[in-house]
Amino acid sequence: MRASRYLIATQKETPADAEVISHQLMLRAGMIRKLAAGLYTWLPLGLRVLRKVERIVREEMDKSGAQEVLMPSIQPAELWQESGRWEQYGGELLRLNDRHGREFCYGPTHEEVITDLVRNELKSYKELPANFYQIQTKFRDERRPRFGVMRAREFLMKDAYSFHLNQESLDETYQVMHGTYCAIFDRLGLDYRPVQADSGSIGGSSSHEFHVLASSGEDDIVFSTGSDYAANIEKAEAIAPPGERPAAAQPLTEVATPDQRTIDDVAAFLKVDATQTVKTLVVKAEAADDEEQGLVALILRGDHTLNEIKAENLPGIAEPLTMASDEDIEKAIGCKPGSIGPVSLSIPVIVDRSAAHLADFVCGANKEGYHLTGVNWERDVPLDRVEDLRNVVEGDPSPCGNGTLEIRRGIEVGHIFKLGNKYSTALNATVLDENGKTAIMEMGCYGIGVSRIVASSIEQNHDDRGIIWPDAIAPFEVSIVTLNAHKSPEVMEAAELLYNQLRQAGYDVLLDDRNERPGVKFADMELIGIPHRFVVSDRGLKAGTLEYKGRRDADKQDIPVADALSFLVKASPRGGL
Amino acid sequence: MRASRYLIATQKETPADAEVISHQLMLRAGMIRKLAAGLYTWLPLGLRVLRKVERIVREEMDKSGAQEVLMPSIQPAELWQESGRWEQYGGELLRLNDRHGREFCYGPTHEEVITDLVRNELKSYKELPANFYQIQTKFRDERRPRFGVMRAREFLMKDAYSFHLNQESLDETYQVMHGTYCAIFDRLGLDYRPVQADSGSIGGSSSHEFHVLASSGEDDIVFSTGSDYAANIEKAEAIAPPGERPAAAQPLTEVATPDQRTIDDVAAFLKVDATQTVKTLVVKAEAADDEEQGLVALILRGDHTLNEIKAENLPGIAEPLTMASDEDIEKAIGCKPGSIGPVSLSIPVIVDRSAAHLADFVCGANKEGYHLTGVNWERDVPLDRVEDLRNVVEGDPSPCGNGTLEIRRGIEVGHIFKLGNKYSTALNATVLDENGKTAIMEMGCYGIGVSRIVASSIEQNHDDRGIIWPDAIAPFEVSIVTLNAHKSPEVMEAAELLYNQLRQAGYDVLLDDRNERPGVKFADMELIGIPHRFVVSDRGLKAGTLEYKGRRDADKQDIPVADALSFLVKASPRGGL
Repeated sequence: MRASRYLIATQKETPADAEVISHQLMLRAGMIRKLAAGLYTWLPLGLRVLRKVERIVREEMDKSGAQEVLMPSIQPAELWQESGRWEQYGGELLRLNDRHGREFCYGPTHEEVITDLVRNELKSYKELPANFYQIQTKFRDERRPRFGVMRAREFLMKDAYSFHLNQESLDETYQVMHGTYCAIFDRLGLDYRPVQADSGSIGGSSSHEFHVLASSGEDDIVFSTGSDYAANIEKAEAIAPPGERPAAAQPLTEVATPDQRTIDDVAAFLKVDATQTVKTLVVKAEAADDEEQGLVALILRGDHTLNEIKAENLPGIAEPLTMASDEDIEKAIGCKPGSIGPVSLSIPVIVDRSAAHLADFVCGANKEGYHLTGVNWERDVPLDRVEDLRNVVEGDPSPCGNGTLEIRRGIEVGHIFKLGNKYSTALNATVLDENGKTAIMEMGCYGIGVSRIVASSIEQNHDDRGIIWPDAIAPFEVSIVTLNAHKSPEVMEAAELLYNQLRQAGYDVLLDDRNERPGVKFADMELIGIPHRFVVSDRGLKAGTLEYKGRRDADKQDIPVADALSFLVKASPRGGL
Repeated sequence: MRASRYLIATQKETPADAEVISHQLMLRAGMIRKLAAGLYTWLPLGLRVLRKVERIVREEMDKSGAQEVLMPSIQPAELWQESGRWEQYGGELLRLNDRHGREFCYGPTHEEVITDLVRNELKSYKELPANFYQIQTKFRDERRPRFGVMRAREFLMKDAYSFHLNQESLDETYQVMHGTYCAIFDRLGLDYRPVQADSGSIGGSSSHEFHVLASSGEDDIVFSTGSDYAANIEKAEAIAPPGERPAAAQPLTEVATPDQRTIDDVAAFLKVDATQTVKTLVVKAEAADDEEQGLVALILRGDHTLNEIKAENLPGIAEPLTMASDEDIEKAIGCKPGSIGPVSLSIPVIVDRSAAHLADFVCGANKEGYHLTGVNWERDVPLDRVEDLRNVVEGDPSPCGNGTLEIRRGIEVGHIFKLGNKYSTALNATVLDENGKTAIMEMGCYGIGVSRIVASSIEQNHDDRGIIWPDAIAPFEVSIVTLNAHKSPEVMEAAELLYNQLRQAGYDVLLDDRNERPGVKFADMELIGIPHRFVVSDRGLKAGTLEYKGRRDADKQDIPVADALSFLVKASPRGGL
């Protein structure tokens, strides 16, 4: 491609409303432009990257045996009503009416449509397993779209759905998809981790997320220092501290703690560490039939935080998790939220594993302005129900048994789920099994955020001069920058020769033949992030050389003109993909 | 691809609600499935065809120098309000509201978005001309979606928009696009014609449609027998009959024609040919300021039909064209519509060229139950305004001056427009010209119905056994059908060998390894329309041969196993695209 005939829409200024580096650089490098909140146009340079990501995803999905289909983006409400999600799905579902007033949505995902297709097309277990995927524009009406294409409303996604006669077959395909995802993210040159994840509202029993590690990530990812264990913090198991619970040593004592509201206040006032205190959170209980919705107390060590996902998944707790109001608490317990504790509490209590390991601890006295010290489980308060309620923290022992936990930020770029039969049951998607009996199919689903990958790659690959693309998804692998070409026919001729030579070898080449100052051209090529750069100049040609610089290199080097291609093949062996 | 692991969803029965052959065959061959009215899922086989069409379109667009972008499908209402189309565009525009109640539409086309982008990105004439295209899902909320993907609501389209400093530059790019479209449709193996077209509501001065010729087409396409002239009937010029108008020979006579309502009735009653009569249609005039909207009479030869597009485009006539009601006519003229004629008519008259060429003709007497015979222009009625008002008919002289006109049915698969400055003026899209002065850009736009092409190709390429794909867009170029492979390891081994050999040579191969009866497999491969077929059988292998049959061939032939590839290369030289 000749830059003189191509939209190089670089910008010097960092756009004010772009918070993360990938968003800033995609705007500055002329990869995307905003049309409206969460809606972006992909400019030619950005689209080249997107298409390369898409191609790698498609190639690996094909290799896995999945079959590509293309479902409509607009879906009839009837199918969503059949699955029950028309009511459940919140404001992210873009609902609309056609000219005849019929209800549709712009698909944020396609479980209903593919299940409807498969229940009509597949009749026998002999046709299973089957895995269908598409690479398609999705819409999720985010309340607060942000970070450019990282959390846009309209985005490109690869979604796959597999169908099985039984759980074993689902497990197999799930493993194949796990491997396929690793192959995809490897080829994309990303530093990523597959992590255990909560299955969330999409339903199902087991799931992994694939996270690109980056400080701008919106998720906390937990790793073991001693094994491959990795999980989203939503899911990471917090295990009890090692050893037996210490024996009780102090007497139960009520102490006045006037005006001490927070755990830190109370700990400082009583001169104990926050780790020696517990806090009590009150949430709504699962509603029983015909009864008023009760409350449940959750007990955590003072320095720990509640993991809402874990709490919500427990039997007996209302879903979604709902904190009790101050009024509810005063009515049920007779004191304000800041003074609650488990001793003689009138509502059911669930104790976190770490809180359950404490002896001689401090807690609220269920009496305004008072706390209890020297509290001990079983002696002073029964310990009926112990659960994993909290978020892990750095240094926690790993639940795998090896090493301790570290926490880093991650960007979710892929997610694989075992859906089980949630949708196949709702839509009655069956086949005949080996015995000629009707069997509900098991399902898996597997997503990749194709457009989000582009931003994630930038989060991991940039410097103060701009983007640094991995060769595999660079818009162009090589740039050829001409110096003063409009004055020197020799420079232009040599550049054209090299351009044709590299293109014939299969490289994507951007010939920067623009009539701009060298500094402008260099800065643009670096901002755009092209991994390899040759400079053709009069001075160099007189010496029979071109100048080469890799985007990550500190120094330039002179290469004999005749060696340019073989040099590049060594530097970028993936050229000519 | 192995058919045993691939969705071969063929059907024997012709679906009842599929009217045209392409729709029937796409359903029967398992290319598409209906999700809702005008919404189709592309199954794996169909999607392969769609992607091949898309690829050819992309390659030729890239070759033309156009730059690919990707704009959002969801567009903010504000831009459409700026162009004025938010109000003008009818029910086909799918309007919707986001969660915050803001108005958007699902883009049926992207003039506004691209013009907004370009007005922000391009500043100087030096950046022109520029031509941006995308291949993207569009939505048009057709009142009556029909013919499968031929007139679906959601469909895949290539749309391109070019920007220019002046008309000459637009003319140049328009010609380049004309050539690019011919290259695309040539590669797709379609029998097509570029035809002159009306620019319609999209605006602009000049346009060509590209039509695939097929009896199921919804457009009438007019050709000259003596030249390359071709036009949509909406646009095809009807010229006056040759020679001078004959001299008046008969006296003007009023005759009673009781109860004769139609032209045919009157002609039969008076024993003249319909070609010797005129009919008078009354339409609304263009509204003048502060005046009541008047009427205009349109005079056509009795055997001709009004071309509404031509009439609507004439100065003095209301747009959209609106027929006067019986009441309007009685009020203005004093008689019923069936009795009107141009003589002494109280409203302005526009006469079609052919009607203006008549002498001694018959027309209504503006008096219920009476006609005039022996009417002559100028002698009996002034001939102030003569225009081209009618649809051409077969046998008309070609407006190019050579040959006569033929009419065939066509399916519009492409359309190129000179838009002029309609959108650039509305959105104030300017650049600085050579003199540093602000100049409104000229625009062109260029569409191709990618998904419609798939259906059009089938309309042209099928027989009673199914689809016959051109090699360039066949889902698979070659099928290998095994006979009794589950009983014969030799057959399976030979088939695998051939499968790998042909794939390595670059062919898309479908290995039909299904455990089905030979008749079922042959019928499926023919229905699906794979152009080349090899059969591997025990009997053949014993003789060292495979059986080959081209999809259009009447007979099979035996080919030595070792010659299969070289034979195929001869039969399908485009293999290994």
